[in-house]
Amino acid sequence: MRVERDFLGEIELPDAAYYGVQTMRAVQNFSITGHKLDKEFIIALAIVKKAAAKANMKTGRMPTNIGAAIVEASVEIMAGKWHDQFVVDAIQGGAGTSMNMNANEVIANRALEILGHKKGDYTVVSPNNHVNMAQSTNDVIPTAIRIAIIKKATRLYHELVLLTDSLTHKANEFNHVLKMGRTHLQDAVPITLGQEFAAYAAGVKRAAKRVQRAMQNLLAINMGATAVGTGLNAEPEYIEEVVRQICWLTDETFVSAPNLVDATQNTDELAEFSSTLKICALSLSKMADDLRLMASGPKCGFNEIILPAMQPGSSIMPGKVNPVIPEMVNQVAFQIVGNDQVVSLAVEAGQFELNVMEPVIAYNIFNSLTILTNAINTLNNRCIMNIAANDCRCQQMVDDSIGVITALLPHIGYEAASLIAKEAISSSLPVREIIKAKGLIPNDQLEIILSPGEMTKPGIAGKQYLSSTGQDTA
Amino acid sequence: MRVERDFLGEIELPDAAYYGVQTMRAVQNFSITGHKLDKEFIIALAIVKKAAAKANMKTGRMPTNIGAAIVEASVEIMAGKWHDQFVVDAIQGGAGTSMNMNANEVIANRALEILGHKKGDYTVVSPNNHVNMAQSTNDVIPTAIRIAIIKKATRLYHELVLLTDSLTHKANEFNHVLKMGRTHLQDAVPITLGQEFAAYAAGVKRAAKRVQRAMQNLLAINMGATAVGTGLNAEPEYIEEVVRQICWLTDETFVSAPNLVDATQNTDELAEFSSTLKICALSLSKMADDLRLMASGPKCGFNEIILPAMQPGSSIMPGKVNPVIPEMVNQVAFQIVGNDQVVSLAVEAGQFELNVMEPVIAYNIFNSLTILTNAINTLNNRCIMNIAANDCRCQQMVDDSIGVITALLPHIGYEAASLIAKEAISSSLPVREIIKAKGLIPNDQLEIILSPGEMTKPGIAGKQYLSSTGQDTA
Amino acid sequence: MRVERDFLGEIELPDAAYYGVQTMRAVQNFSITGHKLDKEFIIALAIVKKAAAKANMKTGRMPTNIGAAIVEASVEIMAGKWHDQFVVDAIQGGAGTSMNMNANEVIANRALEILGHKKGDYTVVSPNNHVNMAQSTNDVIPTAIRIAIIKKATRLYHELVLLTDSLTHKANEFNHVLKMGRTHLQDAVPITLGQEFAAYAAGVKRAAKRVQRAMQNLLAINMGATAVGTGLNAEPEYIEEVVRQICWLTDETFVSAPNLVDATQNTDELAEFSSTLKICALSLSKMADDLRLMASGPKCGFNEIILPAMQPGSSIMPGKVNPVIPEMVNQVAFQIVGNDQVVSLAVEAGQFELNVMEPVIAYNIFNSLTILTNAINTLNNRCIMNIAANDCRCQQMVDDSIGVITALLPHIGYEAASLIAKEAISSSLPVREIIKAKGLIPNDQLEIILSPGEMTKPGIAGKQYLSSTGQDTA
Amino acid sequence: MRVERDFLGEIELPDAAYYGVQTMRAVQNFSITGHKLDKEFIIALAIVKKAAAKANMKTGRMPTNIGAAIVEASVEIMAGKWHDQFVVDAIQGGAGTSMNMNANEVIANRALEILGHKKGDYTVVSPNNHVNMAQSTNDVIPTAIRIAIIKKATRLYHELVLLTDSLTHKANEFNHVLKMGRTHLQDAVPITLGQEFAAYAAGVKRAAKRVQRAMQNLLAINMGATAVGTGLNAEPEYIEEVVRQICWLTDETFVSAPNLVDATQNTDELAEFSSTLKICALSLSKMADDLRLMASGPKCGFNEIILPAMQPGSSIMPGKVNPVIPEMVNQVAFQIVGNDQVVSLAVEAGQFELNVMEPVIAYNIFNSLTILTNAINTLNNRCIMNIAANDCRCQQMVDDSIGVITALLPHIGYEAASLIAKEAISSSLPVREIIKAKGLIPNDQLEIILSPGEMTKPGIAGKQYLSSTGQDTA
Repeated sequence: MRVERDFLGEIELPDAAYYGVQTMRAVQNFSITGHKLDKEFIIALAIVKKAAAKANMKTGRMPTNIGAAIVEASVEIMAGKWHDQFVVDAIQGGAGTSMNMNANEVIANRALEILGHKKGDYTVVSPNNHVNMAQSTNDVIPTAIRIAIIKKATRLYHELVLLTDSLTHKANEFNHVLKMGRTHLQDAVPITLGQEFAAYAAGVKRAAKRVQRAMQNLLAINMGATAVGTGLNAEPEYIEEVVRQICWLTDETFVSAPNLVDATQNTDELAEFSSTLKICALSLSKMADDLRLMASGPKCGFNEIILPAMQPGSSIMPGKVNPVIPEMVNQVAFQIVGNDQVVSLAVEAGQFELNVMEPVIAYNIFNSLTILTNAINTLNNRCIMNIAANDCRCQQMVDDSIGVITALLPHIGYEAASLIAKEAISSSLPVREIIKAKGLIPNDQLEIILSPGEMTKPGIAGKQYLSSTGQDTA
Repeated sequence: MRVERDFLGEIELPDAAYYGVQTMRAVQNFSITGHKLDKEFIIALAIVKKAAAKANMKTGRMPTNIGAAIVEASVEIMAGKWHDQFVVDAIQGGAGTSMNMNANEVIANRALEILGHKKGDYTVVSPNNHVNMAQSTNDVIPTAIRIAIIKKATRLYHELVLLTDSLTHKANEFNHVLKMGRTHLQDAVPITLGQEFAAYAAGVKRAAKRVQRAMQNLLAINMGATAVGTGLNAEPEYIEEVVRQICWLTDETFVSAPNLVDATQNTDELAEFSSTLKICALSLSKMADDLRLMASGPKCGFNEIILPAMQPGSSIMPGKVNPVIPEMVNQVAFQIVGNDQVVSLAVEAGQFELNVMEPVIAYNIFNSLTILTNAINTLNNRCIMNIAANDCRCQQMVDDSIGVITALLPHIGYEAASLIAKEAISSSLPVREIIKAKGLIPNDQLEIILSPGEMTKPGIAGKQYLSSTGQDTA
Repeated sequence: MRVERDFLGEIELPDAAYYGVQTMRAVQNFSITGHKLDKEFIIALAIVKKAAAKANMKTGRMPTNIGAAIVEASVEIMAGKWHDQFVVDAIQGGAGTSMNMNANEVIANRALEILGHKKGDYTVVSPNNHVNMAQSTNDVIPTAIRIAIIKKATRLYHELVLLTDSLTHKANEFNHVLKMGRTHLQDAVPITLGQEFAAYAAGVKRAAKRVQRAMQNLLAINMGATAVGTGLNAEPEYIEEVVRQICWLTDETFVSAPNLVDATQNTDELAEFSSTLKICALSLSKMADDLRLMASGPKCGFNEIILPAMQPGSSIMPGKVNPVIPEMVNQVAFQIVGNDQVVSLAVEAGQFELNVMEPVIAYNIFNSLTILTNAINTLNNRCIMNIAANDCRCQQMVDDSIGVITALLPHIGYEAASLIAKEAISSSLPVREIIKAKGLIPNDQLEIILSPGEMTKPGIAGKQYLSSTGQDTA
Repeated sequence: MRVERDFLGEIELPDAAYYGVQTMRAVQNFSITGHKLDKEFIIALAIVKKAAAKANMKTGRMPTNIGAAIVEASVEIMAGKWHDQFVVDAIQGGAGTSMNMNANEVIANRALEILGHKKGDYTVVSPNNHVNMAQSTNDVIPTAIRIAIIKKATRLYHELVLLTDSLTHKANEFNHVLKMGRTHLQDAVPITLGQEFAAYAAGVKRAAKRVQRAMQNLLAINMGATAVGTGLNAEPEYIEEVVRQICWLTDETFVSAPNLVDATQNTDELAEFSSTLKICALSLSKMADDLRLMASGPKCGFNEIILPAMQPGSSIMPGKVNPVIPEMVNQVAFQIVGNDQVVSLAVEAGQFELNVMEPVIAYNIFNSLTILTNAINTLNNRCIMNIAANDCRCQQMVDDSIGVITALLPHIGYEAASLIAKEAISSSLPVREIIKAKGLIPNDQLEIILSPGEMTKPGIAGKQYLSSTGQDTA
């Protein structure tokens, strides 16, 4: 065991630990969720620390040998090493001071080791004076959060694009599957299954664009803001350089926020990003609901599509197969709606120069990104790609339906059509037969009006007939 | 009383009523909130009906005399007449069918009157066949919602711009008021009150831009989608014309949604718009919290600013004045967060070709727009514009504070600075005096380091001195 | 016009106005929602004022003639008079000071009139010194909120009881309608429609009990707390008497809260009450979803029940009837979930001795109570009571189903049963026939096992046969 | 590797795995959160399996040797063994089928081992036929959720009791610390710090009671419901016995739900439990806010209390100490509000005979219980217990305040008091001196009126004097 001290006193640490006294206090203070920091966030912290060291070397404030060791230690973390030394809880007081100090201490101790010193010898390499030079938790944490979000959101965006592709592919595949459209869960008018999947694709594509745009807003970072945004202890040339370094390390176009005081205290852009995930989740959940409804059955439901069977659906009912993938999507969506609520509350709770609730904001956005990305990947690969249409069943329901009466509206008027609809329900006779029996429209015209091509495209079905008779003035 | 009938039977209506049988059924079915439709939404319905009549006249489907009467009736509603005839409840089943039919019936009956017929003579002018020609609730309602939102949001945007201006004005006014910055509600380092107000201005400006952008997304409307988005009964030339007419009537650049099936069933853009209002509300609530904190006192609080006294603050405590305007802003913000939650649930609940929950979506977005616009106007005119700074108090707190020690960090290092901070707390001596007593830094350099201009701008306070001594390598 | 003044200056009022200077300031300050105070809340304010006047007369602090006039004015308001004089907005800053002063001023001016004085002559009857004697907004408003909630919740409870009765009645009516039970929207095992309605009844009954219990918690009121709960200016004998008077006037068993400081600052019991409404709404929404699913069709859906037709369902699709009443219930439920969110945020935002966000808390609870009560009444009378079962369709689906295989599980084991299920799906042959063909179980035993009575009750279907063969050890 | 098969085909499993084919499919299907099942939930599953085996042995359906092996395997899991074999993700489709099958397979394979057979030899001990005998996911999972909640909630309740004790202890300790009460963050009237802590204690005590009561509602379990609540394949004597066994194993008074169909499909009691946690969190968050406000400073804030210093508060500002423990409590509270939102959405999404969203419901309730329990323990031990009052500062603020004027209200009336308050603010003279200078009240009486004892208790301060002069009739 080694002993370290801060202005609150001494504390013992395992010899092997790269983290130090302040991390240990945080571990003792915060045993809350049992969840550690997101892997991408740890990497983002290392990126910030490397960038700052480089910038401080450039301004000449950081001694070259110390700076080089900090850079080397940071690069190791960026490559996945020492992640087990990041031991603080994801939910913690202090606006992330403990996360920042955890990084500062691990890097300082690893740098000491690289330089041939013993861990804890902070007079040589100091977590605060060197690793944290010209920085504050209040610029490091918001910046690292943004770097991690953009990394994770890039994967999400990619999955959304792939899902859009699959849905579009299915839309084409199902282009000729005529089925009853439904509004209010009641039979409406015919549509194709392909049109439905194209609508899903359109919604997912919009979600992808929304994510992409929200990512843009996160490119403004507040490095150099230090404690309250005024930039105390951060020289202008440092600020410029640290942002340039972060761009270089991430291959993203980060910029210095135009107003660092604003960028340090306001978290509206994190709220916006979270909302974007929520909206995406809502669209997916609606689609998942539709899939579960269309796949309901096999005998006593809609039974319009067949989802791939992924696992036995019941411990007691033999042969039962459930729509487990869409059900998972619904649950993930609910979780994301709740996570967004957490973010909203935390964003509102900012006070003066800082929002100290950033740990819980980051925790929830990271979680939403992870589960949403996983859910979409799963939905795409384990469900959408292998959905089959039950063509016959779909066609049969169109043939049985009353909703086709709508196509006749321009020809016979709303009131007459309503009466025929009513008769069709009570008599169980097809609409087509009733009209024929009544001789309301010549048979050949009727067939044109009720043909699928006419009914699923804009325009008046059988319009040519209409104009010849002038009925549409009733 | 007159009698009207639909396919469910007959119903009696007051002679004076312009609404008809279907409206009356809705009134009987839905006595829920006691709130009627938003005024802007009624006008938007009339705009849609006028535009559709014009388009149907252009395609030749609508007889000219009937179309002209529908147009005239619609124009009257757009001008504010007959709003008392819109009697359906804001929350209603049926995706807004009753709202649409309320408009159809009022316009049909008024058109009948204009044409010299009696109300209820639907064989001449029919609510369904004529006023609703080539339309469905499922395109009329989503379109009218968008038109009304854009009208209301334009006012909101205007108020956000005015608030940004006032905050910017105050930022300039308070530019030289030095005060303690606070993080974690604990004294941090100096900042100016002007910097704080500039940060508020930046946040509000961003909110305004966000609203503006979300409005753009609502310009894609689904007129011509009819029942399920396939466009059955709506001719392409009609679709093109109806959108053109709506642009003309609203002076906005509406376009036809690229995929009408998508636009009829997906409501993610309404979710996005609602979220935008929520994010705006969160920022305002944070600012309102800060104002209430800064104005706390008058004797036992922060007392850094003086809010204009708007009303006696207590029925029992004489002379008490409360920050009632910011308190109202907080409450409005909470309401909008809740409203957004309603919208999220409703958006998720869409099924197949339609989201039947649109009435409650519209109700909440309209409500959020109304109260947010009113709250911002009130906040601006009854609070922000007349805030005064308590300069002396602000300066005194900076002088008493320990946080100025941070400016010395590059000069003496984190550990030494911590010890001085500790001593300052326990001894109640100013930091400045302790350093002088210890002779750590020459007095003239110390004065430079601790000067306001050095401490509230980016850079190392007293950097020149630092470089001459090389202390910043400790 | 008359002129009144407070310590902020003079203000002009219409001669006819019973409200005074402080109300007018609030009207000018808060033009937010356009919604005035809930009628029951206005009555509750009058109850509190009458009770306080009586109690102050008893302690001798209130002159008898003034007290009598205040009592008379309050009684008039309790009877429904002067409600138009309550002109402040429902959302307002100041913890309800403006609501309280609105009541104080209306009552003072009406009392002045009763005593033969002119409105505004507050030296004779003062809104603060007399009508508000021994009171503060901070005890008046929380108390009046509780009185109004209990009044409104009593109606809600009544509607929940009636709905439970109707559902129970339907459960009996549908006792013999055998249908397929569904889990995951997939065919499971048979159940009766009566069992389903009995489950709905059980859920609603539990909701009613929950409301009743949450009402009990609201019986503890904080009259006498005055400004911060310490009771300054409120004598113990007054406190005792004012609660007794409120009990007398409301016929409820209100008690003095055991800790008035606690009761003035903590609003957890309002949060609990709101949550209770939310949970009720969730159960109703689930039931509404089920009803809409069961009624889906008429040709292309489940079509197990027929909801009463309440209004034409479409402006374009003739004869379409939608489940508008359950759809309304869903929307009301969403609204209540959102309202509860508002309450949660406002409850959290309390600070020190008071929660100044009480206006928005009350506004949302009152709104939830109103719309939930109306929705349940409508659901019961316009839907549940007239639901009809589609017996034949239900029976036919059971006959077609594969899920009956579960009844055979104890007889042939999970694996064998799974294979038969699979065969039934691929071959479209009934399960019964496959088993017969395979001769797995004697025909007479099979009929017993698959009989409805055996399958919808606890126990092993055909147990007698099982025990004779000992198959259930596979 | 060994091979197992279900009706979807074969799958390879590591030889060492106790889980089987269905678990493996779930692992492949659901890689979502990366979080496994809660430890208490795994134990609860084992309790259910042991209880069911015992009950099935009693009814004679389960062969004794197999039953004994299942019992032994379950007991091992209850003792903490094999938890690493529970490998399914916490969020999963299928209502928890995969959780149940994970338990069934681990227990079956371990039982096989105990009986001297090889893993996977399901003809001897079958996960479905034996371990799951007379059970369904749809009764096992809801029951295990309740068992786990009650276990975890017992710990929460204990922490709430301890926190109540600490707060009560502090209330006594601070009984004589006079300070200014605040409403609207504005100085109100004097109160003692002890009265404030007693109010916190009262709120927390109420939260504890609420948790206790909500636990009672979860004692009704649905074992024997099997697939849809009808009890198919579960004999009445089994149902009775399995509940008795669960009581025995948990030492809790579980009962069989009166309506098993209801208990299988309705999840309102889980919603209620979650809401209870939310309300508790809201109260704690309000208290945490107060603590942070009271501790604000050290120089530029309220500075009424001193929180124990738990860790350095800044990476850049030396000597800064932040209220990290209350900040953590706020964040945990926000998380719980969000989690409750997830539960609400999931509860609403139940359909027909089952709520398939139970995995996400359980996940969020378990998470809320864990973090709330940890947060309260931390708050109590690392903050509340060691809070110190800043007596002098508190007293000084009372002396400076204007709010004491309220005590004079009964003596001089609201209007006169308002003028004195105004004068006190503008002149900065103490209220006491102004009154003395004006000679409004004899000095000796004034001292009595303004004494702490008089001002912080119910009653009119200096009442005796009042009655002697009859001033209180103005």
